[in-house]
Amino acid sequence: MQYKLTVVFLLIFSISWAQKSPVDYVNPFIGTSNFGTTNPGPIAVRGMANVSPFNVAGPQNLPLEKDSRWLSTPYVHENTFLTGFSHVNLSGVGCPELGVILTMPTTGKIITDHLEYGSTYSNEISQVGYYSNVLDKYNIKVEATATTRVGVSKYSFPAGESNILLNLGLGLTNEEGANVKVVSATEIEGVRSVGSFCYYKPEEAYPVYFVARFSKAADEFGVWKKPTTYKGVESEWMGYNGKTRLMKGFTKEVVGDSIGAYMRYNFDSPTQVEMKIGISYVSLDNARENLEKETLDRTFDGILLDARKEWNQYLSKIEVEGGSEEDKTVFYTALYHTLIHPNTLNDVNGDYPKMKTRETLKTKGTRYTVFSLWDTYRNLHQLMSLVYPKQQSDMVKSMLQIYDESGWLPKWELNATETTTMVGDPAGIIIADTYLKGIRDFDVEKAYKAMLKSAGQLKDNPLRPGLQDYITKGYLTTKTTNSGSVSTTQEYNIADYAIAQLAKEMGEQSDYKRFGKRAISYRKLFDKEFNLLRPRNDDGSWLTPYNPESGANFEKNLGFIEGNAWQYTFMVPHDIKGLMKLMGGPKPFAQRLQDVFDKGQFDMANEPDIAYPYLFNYVKGKEYRAQKLVSDLLDEHFKNSPDGIPGNDDTGTMSAWAVFSMMGIYPVNPAAPMYALVKPKFDKITIHLDDEYYKGRKLVILSNTVENKEPIGEILINGKPHKEYFISHKKLVNASKIQID
Amino acid sequence: MQYKLTVVFLLIFSISWAQKSPVDYVNPFIGTSNFGTTNPGPIAVRGMANVSPFNVAGPQNLPLEKDSRWLSTPYVHENTFLTGFSHVNLSGVGCPELGVILTMPTTGKIITDHLEYGSTYSNEISQVGYYSNVLDKYNIKVEATATTRVGVSKYSFPAGESNILLNLGLGLTNEEGANVKVVSATEIEGVRSVGSFCYYKPEEAYPVYFVARFSKAADEFGVWKKPTTYKGVESEWMGYNGKTRLMKGFTKEVVGDSIGAYMRYNFDSPTQVEMKIGISYVSLDNARENLEKETLDRTFDGILLDARKEWNQYLSKIEVEGGSEEDKTVFYTALYHTLIHPNTLNDVNGDYPKMKTRETLKTKGTRYTVFSLWDTYRNLHQLMSLVYPKQQSDMVKSMLQIYDESGWLPKWELNATETTTMVGDPAGIIIADTYLKGIRDFDVEKAYKAMLKSAGQLKDNPLRPGLQDYITKGYLTTKTTNSGSVSTTQEYNIADYAIAQLAKEMGEQSDYKRFGKRAISYRKLFDKEFNLLRPRNDDGSWLTPYNPESGANFEKNLGFIEGNAWQYTFMVPHDIKGLMKLMGGPKPFAQRLQDVFDKGQFDMANEPDIAYPYLFNYVKGKEYRAQKLVSDLLDEHFKNSPDGIPGNDDTGTMSAWAVFSMMGIYPVNPAAPMYALVKPKFDKITIHLDDEYYKGRKLVILSNTVENKEPIGEILINGKPHKEYFISHKKLVNASKIQID
Repeated sequence: MQYKLTVVFLLIFSISWAQKSPVDYVNPFIGTSNFGTTNPGPIAVRGMANVSPFNVAGPQNLPLEKDSRWLSTPYVHENTFLTGFSHVNLSGVGCPELGVILTMPTTGKIITDHLEYGSTYSNEISQVGYYSNVLDKYNIKVEATATTRVGVSKYSFPAGESNILLNLGLGLTNEEGANVKVVSATEIEGVRSVGSFCYYKPEEAYPVYFVARFSKAADEFGVWKKPTTYKGVESEWMGYNGKTRLMKGFTKEVVGDSIGAYMRYNFDSPTQVEMKIGISYVSLDNARENLEKETLDRTFDGILLDARKEWNQYLSKIEVEGGSEEDKTVFYTALYHTLIHPNTLNDVNGDYPKMKTRETLKTKGTRYTVFSLWDTYRNLHQLMSLVYPKQQSDMVKSMLQIYDESGWLPKWELNATETTTMVGDPAGIIIADTYLKGIRDFDVEKAYKAMLKSAGQLKDNPLRPGLQDYITKGYLTTKTTNSGSVSTTQEYNIADYAIAQLAKEMGEQSDYKRFGKRAISYRKLFDKEFNLLRPRNDDGSWLTPYNPESGANFEKNLGFIEGNAWQYTFMVPHDIKGLMKLMGGPKPFAQRLQDVFDKGQFDMANEPDIAYPYLFNYVKGKEYRAQKLVSDLLDEHFKNSPDGIPGNDDTGTMSAWAVFSMMGIYPVNPAAPMYALVKPKFDKITIHLDDEYYKGRKLVILSNTVENKEPIGEILINGKPHKEYFISHKKLVNASKIQID
Repeated sequence: MQYKLTVVFLLIFSISWAQKSPVDYVNPFIGTSNFGTTNPGPIAVRGMANVSPFNVAGPQNLPLEKDSRWLSTPYVHENTFLTGFSHVNLSGVGCPELGVILTMPTTGKIITDHLEYGSTYSNEISQVGYYSNVLDKYNIKVEATATTRVGVSKYSFPAGESNILLNLGLGLTNEEGANVKVVSATEIEGVRSVGSFCYYKPEEAYPVYFVARFSKAADEFGVWKKPTTYKGVESEWMGYNGKTRLMKGFTKEVVGDSIGAYMRYNFDSPTQVEMKIGISYVSLDNARENLEKETLDRTFDGILLDARKEWNQYLSKIEVEGGSEEDKTVFYTALYHTLIHPNTLNDVNGDYPKMKTRETLKTKGTRYTVFSLWDTYRNLHQLMSLVYPKQQSDMVKSMLQIYDESGWLPKWELNATETTTMVGDPAGIIIADTYLKGIRDFDVEKAYKAMLKSAGQLKDNPLRPGLQDYITKGYLTTKTTNSGSVSTTQEYNIADYAIAQLAKEMGEQSDYKRFGKRAISYRKLFDKEFNLLRPRNDDGSWLTPYNPESGANFEKNLGFIEGNAWQYTFMVPHDIKGLMKLMGGPKPFAQRLQDVFDKGQFDMANEPDIAYPYLFNYVKGKEYRAQKLVSDLLDEHFKNSPDGIPGNDDTGTMSAWAVFSMMGIYPVNPAAPMYALVKPKFDKITIHLDDEYYKGRKLVILSNTVENKEPIGEILINGKPHKEYFISHKKLVNASKIQID
């Protein structure tokens, strides 16, 4: 059977043929293999809803099957067995969560076991705001798009018995429990329990609400439930013990761990059904309102067109010229990935759930969520501050809302739960950086207070465990924590540096001094013997014996979280000069830094060392190494293919690294308003700066020597030579033209 | 610690001391042992809500523990370990169902496992509309009362940490799944899945909604969830696998099979908290509206007073004088038990769920539910027609609503599900009986059509399986069914007799003849060899070998449901003369009937033979046997003690037997408007007949010879001798005085 492309879609194609827009360069399959954990499903800019193909359940997908291993994505490119489309998903995270509200179109009888109704698929297409495939088993063409809070699908059924299944049992999350009700022949509403991110904090599991609307009234509808299996004498009387039951025409709530609902049709001829699923983290009423406000009376094609339009507006904030088509694809896909998380938590009416206890609160701006800050404090928020400052401002405000609600700034916030994943105290770093870059329309006094709180509260401090030792000794010891005493000390150092910088700007001189001093306490962990950082025991002695390699490949170790001494020693971006001194000056520093790469210790796939290449800019005469390394790493790890992200995208952090690196600038010191410079990947990059925050200036980065591998010979800013390989944020956003050749 | 009785309560006591009212004679403990399956919790007249102590969970209650055996009641008098108070319950049924929405007051820490928080109890009091005990473990006094749709409790806590637990996991039903949300510090709302009555029809499981309000705002609240236990590799990462989690302050929905919510207080001094739980089978909004309309701004004491007032009005429709205090207690408790089921299904606003699919419908009168018709067609509805004709009229209308919604009259309807429990086609018998008694304010044409449908539709007939054989052969065979071919034939005969009687009244002469003929087809199953009924095989031969005793004690057998040939042969109340003829005349008939009792085959605890004693009235000169047997059976089986009902009350059928029998009248032929007469148990019985249906007449039954055991010497109606031992309904309701001496 052949499906015709819709007129609208042809239109998009024809436009793009004539002149490709940024949206046309995005390939959402990038990152869907190699544990990138992105998914190819449509999503609006920072959308709450996301219609992802779900192909990680069932033995057909082994070894990348969700229950057989740690797997944190609803979609893996090399898998083949699809069991539906999940409507809330996380992109580029390292823990399984969400991946629920699964829909699946089928034909023939109602089958509710996903292992039975699952299908292989072909003709897979993914573009910005659009996904499509054909389910081989049923010959159904599936298309999907999305608004901010609504997943929209179009199912092209062949003639005959057709079904749309809504499975609330299956999910990527390990949390269970749902409630579903068929409201009418065109509407289903329900609640699905999610939570326990990283198999942790189950007590903060929470509900996601949805309302599904169908463009065609079902000829039949119903719900199903697979109850738990009874044991004991009663099971003898239960002929139905543990068996799935189908409840045809049922119109009240059904509750359980393994339930679902279905709409059923009998078509005389091939027929399309459009389905819209509105999402809310507040209530069913809000899910319905979200659906109606965003999609009422709108067709799939119209919604798709608008989704792409919106994406194109955002992506066009940076225009690139020259460079290969592949580079453009890598670039815009990376930029696309930085615009997924943090995403929208609040409903159209401003309602959102309070942290943890989830009372309904109201926000004026966007309340963002999914703050994977240990990752994103390093570059993603810096990219936002530069290109999307309004969003960055709202993100900071969201962090302050979280502080208001929970008493603490976020660390790894997810849909109004603090998952407390990873280490450090990253929110303040982002806030200071944002403020120092001139984005100041938030309550900085409150922010400062919040930062001081986590930097000072010794007991019951969820952000800085071990703070007592850190303050008194200058570092965490192998007794303070059994995982990452050194790396956590470094994280606290960077956070303290950020406080110091903000204190200075705010005229808090004594805080500036105090935190400035605290910020370099990592120096006490520098061991001359190895010329690397090394954990100290409670009594001040070095951890002995000591192998600085231990900790590679995420191996758990006493000194470092997700890394080893090589991958962490240089992670003192605020005190590179101090580290140089410890190592004996610029030359030994550069040598040791080069060792990281030469000894194969550099890990592009995890955050601690991703700024390393840029550190060569601190050593006069060695800047060419930064340029070469960045260029090589881009070529090696960022590709136009499903495995085109070095590993977990970490909610856009890896992608932000690529975006910055390809533009030739990188925020090498997270709490300082400056960038390191390398050679860009494009002949011309135009950043359309924000009207409100940057007076709508246009920043152009030019390079005539992209093609050759020669080191940078000259940097001109507005035509004037620029001697350094760094540029301040202020100078950057006020420059018209930066020429790097 | 001593609790003071409230002033109101003392008031009730003082009034009753002066002159006992009918309510004061009710002992709700009657029937709570010996598998009577009534419960001592408060309930309004035909109430939807009922606050029953729940003492059937936990090994402490073995052998009468709910999961260790077939147990169909939330409360057993001899049990001692209480795990809460369930708010929707069935009374006098033979299958476990409902017994959910359990609340439990505790002190100290929050413990959510009922096996741990359960307690023994003392000072147990049960009266009409009131239950009270003291929980030994916590020294909490619990009091409970109810309106039609709201359970109302008063917990008297000692000083200190106190909790009210709302457990939605535990329940008598085998159905699981719930949804709960703490709305505020004074309100919790939720849904609990129930259904699968008699371990059957799980596909019709359905939700019950509730809203709980607390008179004091909780100092802390929360929810809990015990998830199912994961297996496989993921369980290694789940430190919380299968463990209960407490979610303090959580304010959104929590869904699961084993969940609950709690309100927590810290009292400076002993404090009372009142809790109201509104119930609905339609929606949360309706549960809230029920709660508000019935109890807003009303206190426990006021509600209790009104509950007792309402009960007294109903019970006072029959006033008895003379007789022992014990007899009065037995009588009024029995009458009380006939006013529990059928009970109210609709909300205060008239909403109720449609059969099976549960769309919301609206009713003008009361939509009754819990129609255990195989039981109640024999006498309970006859009692309603006589004493509470308005209710009986609404019950018939409810049956017609069920027909409208499902296409079939009810058989064993329970909260808008047809459980299809037991056999036969009993609704029509009741409808005909009601109509023939002059209660005619329902759509009799529709009713007649409905009766003809179940009597005529050969295929997919849920009421009369095996109808084809029944019509062509006159009986079901051992091939037609493997359980009860004879008894089901008898049930169909009675139902056909009812159609014939109604047809006659409506002038449908040919139907009258046809069904009159069909109604006596049981005669083909009469075997002269045994002088009893006997199953026939498909080829017409007798089932051989044949032991007419088999089937006693509910043993499953080919010929009879829940009985044997002895207990069923005389169950042809509409054709006693025909049966006499088969047996060789009145004398052999009386002898064979006497054999039933002499051979110990009579079973007072099950329906088929409960009219047997009255059949002696059909044999001139043997009427004394009826009188003696009824009197002896009342004395033996109906007592003022927990085991004071012969067995399962069968939603009031056993109680209705006692009520009629103690008044000296019994509706011996269910579809005929007449009664058999025996000697009453009271000197004077006054029935205040209904204004609307019986012009408010007062019927007095008198007897001067209650005390002696002599046979009846004379019956006078309005002073004139009455020669028969039967009386027509018409004559009865038009009589002023019936003297039986």
